[in-house]
Amino acid sequence: MIAVLKQGTNDKQIENLSSWLKAQGLDVHISKGSDHTIIGLVGDTSKIDEDLLSGLEMVETVKRISEPFKSANRKFHPDDSVIRVGNTSVGGSDFAIMAGPCSVESEEQVMEIAKAVKAAGATMLRGGAFKPRTSPYDFQGLKADGIEILLKAKAATGLPIVTEIMNANHLPMFEEVDVIQVGARNMQNFELLKELGRTNKTILLKRGLANTLKELLMSAEYIMAGGNENVILCERGIRTFETYTRNTLDISAVPMLKELTHLPIIIDPSHATGVAKLVKPMAMAAAAAGADGLMIEVHNDPAHALCDGPQSLTPEAFADVTKAVRRVLAAVKED
Amino acid sequence: MIAVLKQGTNDKQIENLSSWLKAQGLDVHISKGSDHTIIGLVGDTSKIDEDLLSGLEMVETVKRISEPFKSANRKFHPDDSVIRVGNTSVGGSDFAIMAGPCSVESEEQVMEIAKAVKAAGATMLRGGAFKPRTSPYDFQGLKADGIEILLKAKAATGLPIVTEIMNANHLPMFEEVDVIQVGARNMQNFELLKELGRTNKTILLKRGLANTLKELLMSAEYIMAGGNENVILCERGIRTFETYTRNTLDISAVPMLKELTHLPIIIDPSHATGVAKLVKPMAMAAAAAGADGLMIEVHNDPAHALCDGPQSLTPEAFADVTKAVRRVLAAVKED
Amino acid sequence: MIAVLKQGTNDKQIENLSSWLKAQGLDVHISKGSDHTIIGLVGDTSKIDEDLLSGLEMVETVKRISEPFKSANRKFHPDDSVIRVGNTSVGGSDFAIMAGPCSVESEEQVMEIAKAVKAAGATMLRGGAFKPRTSPYDFQGLKADGIEILLKAKAATGLPIVTEIMNANHLPMFEEVDVIQVGARNMQNFELLKELGRTNKTILLKRGLANTLKELLMSAEYIMAGGNENVILCERGIRTFETYTRNTLDISAVPMLKELTHLPIIIDPSHATGVAKLVKPMAMAAAAAGADGLMIEVHNDPAHALCDGPQSLTPEAFADVTKAVRRVLAAVKED
Amino acid sequence: MIAVLKQGTNDKQIENLSSWLKAQGLDVHISKGSDHTIIGLVGDTSKIDEDLLSGLEMVETVKRISEPFKSANRKFHPDDSVIRVGNTSVGGSDFAIMAGPCSVESEEQVMEIAKAVKAAGATMLRGGAFKPRTSPYDFQGLKADGIEILLKAKAATGLPIVTEIMNANHLPMFEEVDVIQVGARNMQNFELLKELGRTNKTILLKRGLANTLKELLMSAEYIMAGGNENVILCERGIRTFETYTRNTLDISAVPMLKELTHLPIIIDPSHATGVAKLVKPMAMAAAAAGADGLMIEVHNDPAHALCDGPQSLTPEAFADVTKAVRRVLAAVKED
Repeated sequence: MIAVLKQGTNDKQIENLSSWLKAQGLDVHISKGSDHTIIGLVGDTSKIDEDLLSGLEMVETVKRISEPFKSANRKFHPDDSVIRVGNTSVGGSDFAIMAGPCSVESEEQVMEIAKAVKAAGATMLRGGAFKPRTSPYDFQGLKADGIEILLKAKAATGLPIVTEIMNANHLPMFEEVDVIQVGARNMQNFELLKELGRTNKTILLKRGLANTLKELLMSAEYIMAGGNENVILCERGIRTFETYTRNTLDISAVPMLKELTHLPIIIDPSHATGVAKLVKPMAMAAAAAGADGLMIEVHNDPAHALCDGPQSLTPEAFADVTKAVRRVLAAVKED
Repeated sequence: MIAVLKQGTNDKQIENLSSWLKAQGLDVHISKGSDHTIIGLVGDTSKIDEDLLSGLEMVETVKRISEPFKSANRKFHPDDSVIRVGNTSVGGSDFAIMAGPCSVESEEQVMEIAKAVKAAGATMLRGGAFKPRTSPYDFQGLKADGIEILLKAKAATGLPIVTEIMNANHLPMFEEVDVIQVGARNMQNFELLKELGRTNKTILLKRGLANTLKELLMSAEYIMAGGNENVILCERGIRTFETYTRNTLDISAVPMLKELTHLPIIIDPSHATGVAKLVKPMAMAAAAAGADGLMIEVHNDPAHALCDGPQSLTPEAFADVTKAVRRVLAAVKED
Repeated sequence: MIAVLKQGTNDKQIENLSSWLKAQGLDVHISKGSDHTIIGLVGDTSKIDEDLLSGLEMVETVKRISEPFKSANRKFHPDDSVIRVGNTSVGGSDFAIMAGPCSVESEEQVMEIAKAVKAAGATMLRGGAFKPRTSPYDFQGLKADGIEILLKAKAATGLPIVTEIMNANHLPMFEEVDVIQVGARNMQNFELLKELGRTNKTILLKRGLANTLKELLMSAEYIMAGGNENVILCERGIRTFETYTRNTLDISAVPMLKELTHLPIIIDPSHATGVAKLVKPMAMAAAAAGADGLMIEVHNDPAHALCDGPQSLTPEAFADVTKAVRRVLAAVKED
Repeated sequence: MIAVLKQGTNDKQIENLSSWLKAQGLDVHISKGSDHTIIGLVGDTSKIDEDLLSGLEMVETVKRISEPFKSANRKFHPDDSVIRVGNTSVGGSDFAIMAGPCSVESEEQVMEIAKAVKAAGATMLRGGAFKPRTSPYDFQGLKADGIEILLKAKAATGLPIVTEIMNANHLPMFEEVDVIQVGARNMQNFELLKELGRTNKTILLKRGLANTLKELLMSAEYIMAGGNENVILCERGIRTFETYTRNTLDISAVPMLKELTHLPIIIDPSHATGVAKLVKPMAMAAAAAGADGLMIEVHNDPAHALCDGPQSLTPEAFADVTKAVRRVLAAVKED
């Protein structure tokens, strides 16, 4: 971390600042130029509050050279994290395919879809019991009943289940859930993240609609700082000015995150595009770019899904996607 | 609400859809063109799930004519809401000025600032006890102790207090808080909004970093749908590509929201710009545009503030701002 | 196209509007509801000025059902356009690989790179002679001399050349250029587009930094409306809030544009990401998503490139990319 | 400017880089830390190509301390620029009000509007003869005939005229035009800017839809680098995710630009909001924030305007705006 001091900062001020920084456990290197004095900080600067430092009157600008995230940082953990989930895993050489309906609607529906996606190659079952909706008048999910249904489908198929949490007080209901999803709108719900950091559950953390990769990693850091290192990152499209697609899927997040962190990264092409026809090409693109897995919406009757119908695939279409994705993965592995 | 059906939709399908819509309590007007059939829906369409309707296979596109928010809608509540807070009020002919430090740091600090901002014309005291920070390693606020300090300052000065909540479980600590703030990152934390809707506290709801005004109003609707109509909206800058300012203050949100809703709207120029020098001109602009109030950061020692120092004003600078704002308000009132 | 009229519009006004619309050659269908009157327009609505119509006082809202672009529209031209360029082509079953330096720096440099990229599988040579730079003090390109150098490399290798135009007055210099590129900042330089529409040259049109796909297609329409149908679209990254990558590559633009238009679509992963390490995975992703080609920056000495060095590949790295891309293309073709 | 070198850069490399930088006329200060070597550059760094420097393999990161713009920089020109236009001026203590129709439609229309806006306090007449339109099928303006009409209105009223140029080849037609406008879509049409830099005409440069203030100033720099210092900056709304307003008016651009540059800054609330009702409050806000002037669309028959009708004011509404703005200006001046 480098701090550039303003012209006219005197020696006394520099000494004061320097003492304070050393007290934070950092090595301090001062270099006086004709115009500006530059202070270089070496050590664990992730604990330095950048806003605080740049807020000092004598400081013109602050620049981080190393990243502010630590537990998630690949520099301190060069190997890919592989997260065990039930009888499968995410990260490393495995490729995870989480599939299922946007919303859990009925036991019959979920059971039918679970069997179909398992047959088509899914490694986990996804489904929403608690649904974050922009409008309080829209369907909010089956809640506890929805989780019960997912657990029945898990028992019947052996597929681990992934479902979203919106309130830390609901954690007792998630006892047997394999992967707890934090949705895009809660990516910076720091109180929820802290609570999840105190559990040992696997957390699937979705990137917020207008958040940067650094912010995503800082939110992962909230979970990891609590002692829970089982975090899967998920890119699900960011808000842009484009309107033909619901969001814009940032596939470059995959290789960029691979440079920055050891955590696994999966892609959700269904929410990202909002268009069923785009799910297949974008799933293939994600596989080609090195993603560790996919999350895909599948519905036995997309035209009558209680939410997000236009982006859901039929089980047949989903089977076609998994085949195409496997071919791309094979082509990538030849590298 | 208008739904345009796809070419080739047959009479049977149209009849089915029409029956279902009538069952939702709507009047249905069908108009068959050579190309497309158009269905017009009249009645309370705020309860119709737009995603569900547009997800039907036979539907090409859906367009709302009336707004999906209802309790917040000015059409159904033409007069401005005036929200009583302690011995003052927000909305209508009063102009609210909420001022104080970003973070509560110590009793001495808050007491000094509270007296200074009151003398300079503030109508409420603001200060953060719970601080949402991007990094888990940054200062997270004094929490319960911070609220105690604010309450002492309230007792000493008579100023109502405004402070942020991040977790509905903390509500008992907010018993004597006058205005509970929901921060930008929690604007779509629907579980928190629902809980606040069950209280009778005044809620100051900040617009999210990349959220639209419609989304802001839908979040207000979450609170109001629970029975709590004491909602103050706050524009605090949105994320854009500009980097000289921290965010971009959308002052046009003020007159636009005034068209759409009866709720009061205040402006936070401190967080919006992140630059102390810009607070005064933007506060004046907000007053000129018809805002119902301001939220301004004031610190007795901005250079050593524990957070957001660069945007804080000294008490002297704040007094200068309130004078200028009062002059602008007088010029606006002559209209 | 549908126009919803305001409440209270009288029969005389409706009749006037209807007559005017019929005079534009459209069929007009009027449907009076209890609340609103809806006018449906059938025919070639691409020539109707949407702003003009929605600007009429009696009109509440206007919604297009069909797209405002016509020559570029796949509905009127279902087959993929295949554009012949020298001894190769873009679109259809061919996969174009345009490679070369960001800027033409010297004959020696271009000749060396041209031979290397040809050997590695490039089908065209790209290089900038006129460089759009944010600062007037940055290197602006070798201009006419740069084009001369490219033509020599074309003569030596047989590779068709692609280079950017910034001023229609320069067209005489582009006489022997195979593909004329319009850069992102000129995507809505309508005067330039009109001039290019009067030529029969192949135009590679890059999407603007914050433009939608509809705007991109309307800009293609400017060229095509002049009689020149040889347009190749190029996605090169859009501006978002992410900072680790220079822009965000919108790969979903590929399958989305394939739905909307018959024009070929290529991807530029070099400018999009600004990071050399990301070029390979993003090139593979583009191929997996169905792109018709790639534009990749290759430099014999990336560390000393006069512009955009950090994103350039060495010829060796480029050869590795083309091999990986070919494997992905083979996997896609098995579909 | 500071360059941080990568770990492992050897002395020979540092010496080479240092020699090259000194050859560019800069003072070079080298400071070796345990981790990184930092190079500080003092002198006129506006001519250093940041991309080139950060592209060098040994360079980890580059940070500008001083701004890359020079002629526009307030540091080198502390006093406000006052630009003389006909019998009026822009900048300093004068407040410019440019008003008129979006498009020139007929002599009768322009003459009527010109007289009305003059009577209501406009200081200049604006009107579009060349219209940049997203669609080639929309009305493109009366072109040369439009300029003739504006000149007649100038002769009749004495108001200086402002009109947009889209093509440098049209410059001869602008001989008697007082202020030449460069539209948002041409803000980075560098060839056009260079041509305008060779004239001595006053240029009104509009900020692009998704451009930063730094980019706006760099575009002003293109004009000024050619010798023409008569540049007026105009904020006309930027693209955001908000849809109730056409764009988002960034009023904080006014005080921010005042810090950065000596050039005058005006605000266009009509294009920024696209909603006639918002023009008055936003014009008042602009005046309160310290703008040097306004550009407002006025039409004698907004409901039948050939473009942008919904945002145009009637002459009566415009007169009401100017009165309110004058009151705000008086309140600001008391400061």
